[in-house]
Amino acid sequence: MLAVHLENRHVAVKRVPRPRPPRGFALIRLLCGGICNTDLELQRGYYGFAGVPGHEFVGEVVALGARAEGVRLGDLVAVETHVADMTCHLCRRGLMHVCANVKILGVDMDGAYAEFVAVPARNCWPIPAGMSLNVAAALEPLGNAVHTVLAGDIAGCSALVTGCGPIGLFAIAVARACGAGPIIASDVNPYRLDLARKIGADVVIDASREDVVARVADATEGRGVDVVLEMSGHPTATRQGLTAVRNAGRVSLLGLPSDAFELDLASLVIFKGVTVQGICGRLMFQTWRQMNELLTSGRLDIRPAITHVMAIDDYAQAMDELKRGNAGKIVLVPWGERAELGQLAAASAQG
Amino acid sequence: MLAVHLENRHVAVKRVPRPRPPRGFALIRLLCGGICNTDLELQRGYYGFAGVPGHEFVGEVVALGARAEGVRLGDLVAVETHVADMTCHLCRRGLMHVCANVKILGVDMDGAYAEFVAVPARNCWPIPAGMSLNVAAALEPLGNAVHTVLAGDIAGCSALVTGCGPIGLFAIAVARACGAGPIIASDVNPYRLDLARKIGADVVIDASREDVVARVADATEGRGVDVVLEMSGHPTATRQGLTAVRNAGRVSLLGLPSDAFELDLASLVIFKGVTVQGICGRLMFQTWRQMNELLTSGRLDIRPAITHVMAIDDYAQAMDELKRGNAGKIVLVPWGERAELGQLAAASAQG
Amino acid sequence: MLAVHLENRHVAVKRVPRPRPPRGFALIRLLCGGICNTDLELQRGYYGFAGVPGHEFVGEVVALGARAEGVRLGDLVAVETHVADMTCHLCRRGLMHVCANVKILGVDMDGAYAEFVAVPARNCWPIPAGMSLNVAAALEPLGNAVHTVLAGDIAGCSALVTGCGPIGLFAIAVARACGAGPIIASDVNPYRLDLARKIGADVVIDASREDVVARVADATEGRGVDVVLEMSGHPTATRQGLTAVRNAGRVSLLGLPSDAFELDLASLVIFKGVTVQGICGRLMFQTWRQMNELLTSGRLDIRPAITHVMAIDDYAQAMDELKRGNAGKIVLVPWGERAELGQLAAASAQG
Amino acid sequence: MLAVHLENRHVAVKRVPRPRPPRGFALIRLLCGGICNTDLELQRGYYGFAGVPGHEFVGEVVALGARAEGVRLGDLVAVETHVADMTCHLCRRGLMHVCANVKILGVDMDGAYAEFVAVPARNCWPIPAGMSLNVAAALEPLGNAVHTVLAGDIAGCSALVTGCGPIGLFAIAVARACGAGPIIASDVNPYRLDLARKIGADVVIDASREDVVARVADATEGRGVDVVLEMSGHPTATRQGLTAVRNAGRVSLLGLPSDAFELDLASLVIFKGVTVQGICGRLMFQTWRQMNELLTSGRLDIRPAITHVMAIDDYAQAMDELKRGNAGKIVLVPWGERAELGQLAAASAQG
Repeated sequence: MLAVHLENRHVAVKRVPRPRPPRGFALIRLLCGGICNTDLELQRGYYGFAGVPGHEFVGEVVALGARAEGVRLGDLVAVETHVADMTCHLCRRGLMHVCANVKILGVDMDGAYAEFVAVPARNCWPIPAGMSLNVAAALEPLGNAVHTVLAGDIAGCSALVTGCGPIGLFAIAVARACGAGPIIASDVNPYRLDLARKIGADVVIDASREDVVARVADATEGRGVDVVLEMSGHPTATRQGLTAVRNAGRVSLLGLPSDAFELDLASLVIFKGVTVQGICGRLMFQTWRQMNELLTSGRLDIRPAITHVMAIDDYAQAMDELKRGNAGKIVLVPWGERAELGQLAAASAQG
Repeated sequence: MLAVHLENRHVAVKRVPRPRPPRGFALIRLLCGGICNTDLELQRGYYGFAGVPGHEFVGEVVALGARAEGVRLGDLVAVETHVADMTCHLCRRGLMHVCANVKILGVDMDGAYAEFVAVPARNCWPIPAGMSLNVAAALEPLGNAVHTVLAGDIAGCSALVTGCGPIGLFAIAVARACGAGPIIASDVNPYRLDLARKIGADVVIDASREDVVARVADATEGRGVDVVLEMSGHPTATRQGLTAVRNAGRVSLLGLPSDAFELDLASLVIFKGVTVQGICGRLMFQTWRQMNELLTSGRLDIRPAITHVMAIDDYAQAMDELKRGNAGKIVLVPWGERAELGQLAAASAQG
Repeated sequence: MLAVHLENRHVAVKRVPRPRPPRGFALIRLLCGGICNTDLELQRGYYGFAGVPGHEFVGEVVALGARAEGVRLGDLVAVETHVADMTCHLCRRGLMHVCANVKILGVDMDGAYAEFVAVPARNCWPIPAGMSLNVAAALEPLGNAVHTVLAGDIAGCSALVTGCGPIGLFAIAVARACGAGPIIASDVNPYRLDLARKIGADVVIDASREDVVARVADATEGRGVDVVLEMSGHPTATRQGLTAVRNAGRVSLLGLPSDAFELDLASLVIFKGVTVQGICGRLMFQTWRQMNELLTSGRLDIRPAITHVMAIDDYAQAMDELKRGNAGKIVLVPWGERAELGQLAAASAQG
Repeated sequence: MLAVHLENRHVAVKRVPRPRPPRGFALIRLLCGGICNTDLELQRGYYGFAGVPGHEFVGEVVALGARAEGVRLGDLVAVETHVADMTCHLCRRGLMHVCANVKILGVDMDGAYAEFVAVPARNCWPIPAGMSLNVAAALEPLGNAVHTVLAGDIAGCSALVTGCGPIGLFAIAVARACGAGPIIASDVNPYRLDLARKIGADVVIDASREDVVARVADATEGRGVDVVLEMSGHPTATRQGLTAVRNAGRVSLLGLPSDAFELDLASLVIFKGVTVQGICGRLMFQTWRQMNELLTSGRLDIRPAITHVMAIDDYAQAMDELKRGNAGKIVLVPWGERAELGQLAAASAQG
């Protein structure tokens, strides 16, 4: 089959053997995929990965290994990419999202940027009827946003989203759908701030020119925000969030800092009585259920954040778009789905 | 001053002495009031009340007693009607809404259906600039709905609201603003079901003709609802809610049953692992803050539930409307606010 | 193999085929079992069960079916008796204890009162080194108590335990180990009240002679209790608990009422802002982990509640003891473990 | 009256005017006080404080200002030292412990190391009958420990306490009383580690010689701890705690770092899904209620941590003991309570 293949920091589309689904696995035919900063990091050589990348996608179940339960042939499914061992002490507590032996699709094993991919059947989430494929391809990162937003109180809360990449944009949309307000978004990129406003931010702050903490104070009558959703991984944004949050507020961290950095825990966390949450993956599968209901009830619409629909053959070019930063979520259409490409682009434009 | 006055189940508008605000109290000039089933019950002789009823309202602070802190002359305020003693063991835990010695405005002491009313300054909630007076008059019962809806998870949850009186309608609007879906509403009154649909229910069920549990199952792919918001006080609706909720779901009770009734706790609560919450009043003042943010951010619009704007002189007639059941929230405009009456009615019609 | 066998309300010890562990199952050789009211109900014909009863036990893993993961041959294990399907919408949310298609060992399938029993490997909980077998045999019902006590705040809380059967006694011990105080216990049986005191109740109330609500008020300086743990299933005890709990308190129900009964929800639940929780089974496997730590750290000692060690051949006689009510937990020693019988009895006597 | 007086980093006992209780205040005659690191910092010139220090104490109510409610003349009271304004947006939410305008007794206003001190009546907590005065004098810092331990799940949880100063020792005792186990304590001071063992730690680690993370792994069968209670403020201990905690565990920070320091949030917090809580003060007054019940029920005994009973005239010498680190809690007996001094020392020796 055709696949995007990564080796020694070099990416190429080439023919590789089609996988066969082992016991408990389903074989998925790719219908639409999404790219993510992790894919960039893989290409830069982090994780020492060689193989087929890709961990955001939707596809059709075309074959089932023995004892593959919970999905049927023909189902359209999105896929939880954390493959938990189900037997470690954390999985036994129901904490599969931080399994002690987790493997991640497209990072620790071959992923989805290929004609076919084999995944554990229990990781499949049948998508609701009528969901557009580019939305379905984005459920995995949207799930990160849902997990972050719903990790504490959000309805009737003011919120600051620091970092308006795709997951930051999703977080704005989710927070709005869940009753947060005012929603304040900060970034240093005007293109992304424009998207932030389109998807539902009440206030946007250009952190390269404006005083984030002062503007948050203005927008909250001096109280500071109830909740900070940190999506950038930047030390400055993290400190701004901890400064801008009110006493006893919540700061949920999803953005990954590239290095350790200095924090004044006494003044930013302890005296303020702030709760800082590290957020990893998605609750399995409570987050998926919540996300499903938000989308099918029409409360949540993430289409404004899906800005590019590209052919999977243009993977390298998609990566360049991602690096430039002038993109929301970029989705990829595989070989043989050319008709779909136009349709997806049109659907995205409507959003 | 003029006041609605209740004595021996008889209501009349008459002149009574204008109250003077004692230490820690504010004197409020009434701008708009709302009526509620509790007012009906007062009139029927429950609670043995004699005096000025009225516990839903907005007004202007026109005088302050000594040491009245937190409000200023000229503020427009809505009022928390639970007057807590602040010293009992429950208040000391922060549970002022269930204070052991609570007194309720318009039930245990003179209320608001008068030109002026004296209330503890700490019970005043300055309303945000630009809020329409009929919405502000409804903040007290809206707070009941916000407290009920936000007493547990709601975003990404399916919800059944049993009973579509004013607070049930508010609960539908709040649940929708906070990301619940699908939202299913049941009642036996077609007028109210119509309002339920207008204010945001995805599915409405006429419980006089339809099988509530079966329709909930249909609307949730057989799963049952995650959350039940019981607003009717009816035994049948309560049992339907407990039957329709999924295992380990939440059933929050605000509607007041008039009598004890039979429940099969083993099959409806224990084997299902359901949590049943009694909801009383509003968290003081967390619920008010959440409500404030929901309204000022525009996430929540309750105007479709405000169906009648009447003159306070027509109090008896308003009570009749309430009894007939073909009304959402009824608000009352006091003497000397005739201009306002038209304006409020117009605002309500737009909603 | 030898087994206790139930059919048409008749129990006998007889030879039945030894089970073979299917895929994913382990075969357990019984070392010690416990009996429970559910066993009495089975015998009375509830559930229409025919086969081998028994759902409280510890044993040794003597054979493994294919793909049986998480246990090894020779492990001593207690067993979670709720066999969840792992694929329903509730299991997918991590709510396996209320699985939509749950089967219960010894109720929906052959149980443990036999020389050997086959159970899903994932339901096995390896017991810590050094745990006595009669304690290990009681982990399943102890888990009910742990689940109930830890279903909300308990440290620094006053607690009322209504009903001092084995699980009520366990709940007293768990609540005490977890920082509850004062712990008040009510029952109508002096034998059980004596055990309640021995295992850690600070105050015991004979509900047949004393005013439970008044005595709770005395023991809490008039505040009422923070938490009620209802273990009797009796309407009177349930109402006493709801009356004795403070406003905004917690009432957790584990005892199973035999019928529907009347409750005044307005005065007992809604105006008081009380939370009523139905408790079912044990969280899988968070409750087991908590219970394990409580026991291995020595914080919790349940031996005072284990009052009878009997031979499994005396099953009918054990049932009679249970019916008479003058027993805490009764454990059964299987054929060929005669030496153990004396040893267990001795261990129990020390506790 | 006599008072310890601090000015320009110089401490002396001298005569100062006796305070008169203003409206809402009570005048307390000091019976027993405690010293704390904050007192050391005051003396080193932090906070620029001049006046009477002292914020841990018990005394007798000897006079009441107007409208001083909730206490009576003759009551023995401990005192919550955070004086909240009760009107800011945080107090209105019930978050008085992080009041936006908080003032702290003995830091922002005259404190307790004097014959008399005036405090807001609502900050008084009448101590239970029979409580020894040196325990009562330590309720304020004990409340810090109770707040930290009970800020999340603790029963059936393994816990690491980093830092065994007085509050760390209290935290060990509280965690044990609330069902934590195993409890692991680390410090670099053998004297304190010895106290840690005496007050209830199951495992003690000398962090100056041993590998804390490895020893925690050993003590938890490789799982890491469920909860970390950080009481040292040291960067190394904080990083050890974040490393030693299991995925999705809780790290509660009470110890105050003196400076900002580097943290690798990606690997220590985000990928692990850890929750980090800043803990400030005591919940007002939920923490006091929980502490009260833990002590009066006998579940909790902190006397092993009270190592020194000294005369208040020896304040400077007490400070030296504190600096040397070879002390648990040091309590001070005021002028005219010489008889008490011996009695307290005896009570302490029994503990």
